[in-house]
Amino acid sequence: MTKPTLPQGTRDFSANTIYKRNFILNTIKETFILYGFEPLETPALENLETLMGKYGDEGDKLIFKILNNGLNDAKHTEKAQKGFDELMKGKASVALTERALKYDLTIPFARFVAMNHGQLTFPYKRFQIQQVWRADRPQRGRYREFTQCDADIAGSRSLWNEVEFANIYHTAFTNMGLNGYQLKLNNRKVLAGLAEKCGGENLLTQITVAIDKIDKVGIDKVLDELKEKGFKDDQLDSIKTYLNIKGNSADVLENALVFFKGIAIAEEGLQELTFLTTKCTNVNICIDLSLARGLNYYTGTIFEAAAPSEVKIGSIGGGGRYDDLTGLFGVAGIPGVGISFGVDRIYDVLEELNLFPDGIVATSKALFFNMGNAEAEHAFEIMQTLRQQQIACELYHEASKMDKQFKYAQKKGIPFAIIIGSKEVADKSCVVKHLMSGTQETINETELTNYLQTH
Amino acid sequence: MTKPTLPQGTRDFSANTIYKRNFILNTIKETFILYGFEPLETPALENLETLMGKYGDEGDKLIFKILNNGLNDAKHTEKAQKGFDELMKGKASVALTERALKYDLTIPFARFVAMNHGQLTFPYKRFQIQQVWRADRPQRGRYREFTQCDADIAGSRSLWNEVEFANIYHTAFTNMGLNGYQLKLNNRKVLAGLAEKCGGENLLTQITVAIDKIDKVGIDKVLDELKEKGFKDDQLDSIKTYLNIKGNSADVLENALVFFKGIAIAEEGLQELTFLTTKCTNVNICIDLSLARGLNYYTGTIFEAAAPSEVKIGSIGGGGRYDDLTGLFGVAGIPGVGISFGVDRIYDVLEELNLFPDGIVATSKALFFNMGNAEAEHAFEIMQTLRQQQIACELYHEASKMDKQFKYAQKKGIPFAIIIGSKEVADKSCVVKHLMSGTQETINETELTNYLQTH
Repeated sequence: MTKPTLPQGTRDFSANTIYKRNFILNTIKETFILYGFEPLETPALENLETLMGKYGDEGDKLIFKILNNGLNDAKHTEKAQKGFDELMKGKASVALTERALKYDLTIPFARFVAMNHGQLTFPYKRFQIQQVWRADRPQRGRYREFTQCDADIAGSRSLWNEVEFANIYHTAFTNMGLNGYQLKLNNRKVLAGLAEKCGGENLLTQITVAIDKIDKVGIDKVLDELKEKGFKDDQLDSIKTYLNIKGNSADVLENALVFFKGIAIAEEGLQELTFLTTKCTNVNICIDLSLARGLNYYTGTIFEAAAPSEVKIGSIGGGGRYDDLTGLFGVAGIPGVGISFGVDRIYDVLEELNLFPDGIVATSKALFFNMGNAEAEHAFEIMQTLRQQQIACELYHEASKMDKQFKYAQKKGIPFAIIIGSKEVADKSCVVKHLMSGTQETINETELTNYLQTH
Repeated sequence: MTKPTLPQGTRDFSANTIYKRNFILNTIKETFILYGFEPLETPALENLETLMGKYGDEGDKLIFKILNNGLNDAKHTEKAQKGFDELMKGKASVALTERALKYDLTIPFARFVAMNHGQLTFPYKRFQIQQVWRADRPQRGRYREFTQCDADIAGSRSLWNEVEFANIYHTAFTNMGLNGYQLKLNNRKVLAGLAEKCGGENLLTQITVAIDKIDKVGIDKVLDELKEKGFKDDQLDSIKTYLNIKGNSADVLENALVFFKGIAIAEEGLQELTFLTTKCTNVNICIDLSLARGLNYYTGTIFEAAAPSEVKIGSIGGGGRYDDLTGLFGVAGIPGVGISFGVDRIYDVLEELNLFPDGIVATSKALFFNMGNAEAEHAFEIMQTLRQQQIACELYHEASKMDKQFKYAQKKGIPFAIIIGSKEVADKSCVVKHLMSGTQETINETELTNYLQTH
């Protein structure tokens, strides 16, 4: 028997980590509910055709596909061999695999809206906190199975939705103690305006692919890359001027309006950004004209949440507006806008800044020592009265040496030991020992509930 | 574009169902914590070799296997073809599939304990509420993706663990309002004793396979089946006598002790049952000597929880003692005992008995009407003060007709509409309309928080 292992890129979570993760997930969930969002859960399994072709060629390769069952039935053999041959050519075949694990929460959400749009109340505001799977190469901070945490609004083009999302970030992050977060904003229409200014919409992808790297490589390298791609000096000057528009939101917007004068699409984008900044006065907003994030996807506002600057970690959230949610599934005319929280990154940030509050890890309040069968029976009855008052407690499973029982309580972080020997049974009393301080006292057993509630 | 569908046997859960399911899951979770259990989460993906061979031949076939990624790389082709040929013969091949979806929570738990036994504090008491996947034929109430809800104790042979589990069932069920639940108990050692009385241990499987059906077919058919299998009249008389030992726990135990006099293994099992019944006086226990439940697995106590008798539904929970948890993974000497709650069945029972409490579905308390941009901006500020007091609310996304806004609130079950027009902005007041009764009043905007907290 070989020692068992976990699949690469997956994790077991034990109690301490789960309670910390739940602090994050519950804070986000409560915020979503506070802002009028309702929960949705979709299955881990989706039909393969629901997912394929939605994430680009690279994405398709990273989808975990599930083998059809019953493939060894005789009737399946020929079809399966054909399917296998197709698989070897890089194509997924229904003869071999019809189902897959979900790769994100947005496509299943779109699939759900497309299937149920007749019954839903629009704007449909849903949140979804579930696992997704990607066959990515695992590395530090990147897992093959991880939790996504999304909220989206389907069926509304109003910019008030963006105002709500900016405030959701603010509420959730400040409730986690992340007051130093920053919410970067941009608008796809502004980037489209830059392409237009440089000579045409067709330049948009090249420009954004290059400027997306600015945080890592700096402005000069970005311009070098564009020069290599054939951009002329006047175009490069424009892009350089654009990337140097920095400062507080009001300054950026003012300078950008001058820069883009007469370019309608950019002016529209800047108006939208102006609306958001004036409506979100309490949110730590920073307009970042170099922000692009999966540009082919977004059509308007682009969000990216950054951790407090003292932590060297990338984005901890992001999102934006995409104006056709369900078209891929044959239902036209439903726009969408949404955001997402990066749970694993937020975990690392809270850990590094020591922001997890005390008391989020639930442990039993008391361990009743097992001093023999008759004593344990008596202790058990008292324990049940505590549990009726919602005090979590345990009886040590067997009448072991005191030492062993103390060690168990200590290892599990249980603060009180309750010792009831034959004398205490007769007295109707109990010895309460506080393990951290080592102090102990004998109290009447009827006082125990109150004692534990107040200590 | 074909209309998208869900894979067979899977479900989307929307808000109403999620909140009801969470009522069940949270009640169980809080009970586990109250009894000193800690959470564990294992990945959905396990190495295929961790799972194969653990659930019998039938189980192996029902495991969802995941296609290896990168199978179309040239270097994989020959190996993959061999793997495919093996697959066609009904064998899972690592060349084609190395990972699978977890089939239950017990084997991943055992894998976790085997991997971490050096670090764990024993007895290790964990609960685990996660999804599992089975390629079973879907039918009413049986799904391919469903939630299991388990608690187990590893590393203790004490019967106090069984006492705890019986009380966990009691606490969780009564907290759900299921006062009429019944906890059936038996012990594998008693069944072994019956086989011995009939002539030998080797008869155990035949006997239990037959009597497991007694609820469905009745005692006569059980005896017929055994007769066909070659059981003699005196053996059948014994089994008949055994199956007719019924009544309250004390009577059953007394009569069984007489029946089994001198058969040590059965006497041991009956002693264990006696211990449990005397220690669990407040639990609705029923000793059911015909209870077997996956006998090959359990070695001592067997639990099965039944719904209140007015509901025609099978068991809503079960479990028992299995004396070698981790031997399959090369770590010997760790016994286990555990129970499980059947979440989907409990859902149906609570629905049928109308036991879901009011108020478990979270909705926004108020919808702020959108009466135009300036009014909405004013409303938004007031709304944010409500949200700071944890009052969930929403602003209608655009300045539509009043009718449309009322309809949105009604459809979403939002109790109050807050209407702030230009007059109210000037007045610093707001109109509060209660949608159920149709009554409305105008109050000062500073009174709104208090109004909504008390109405």
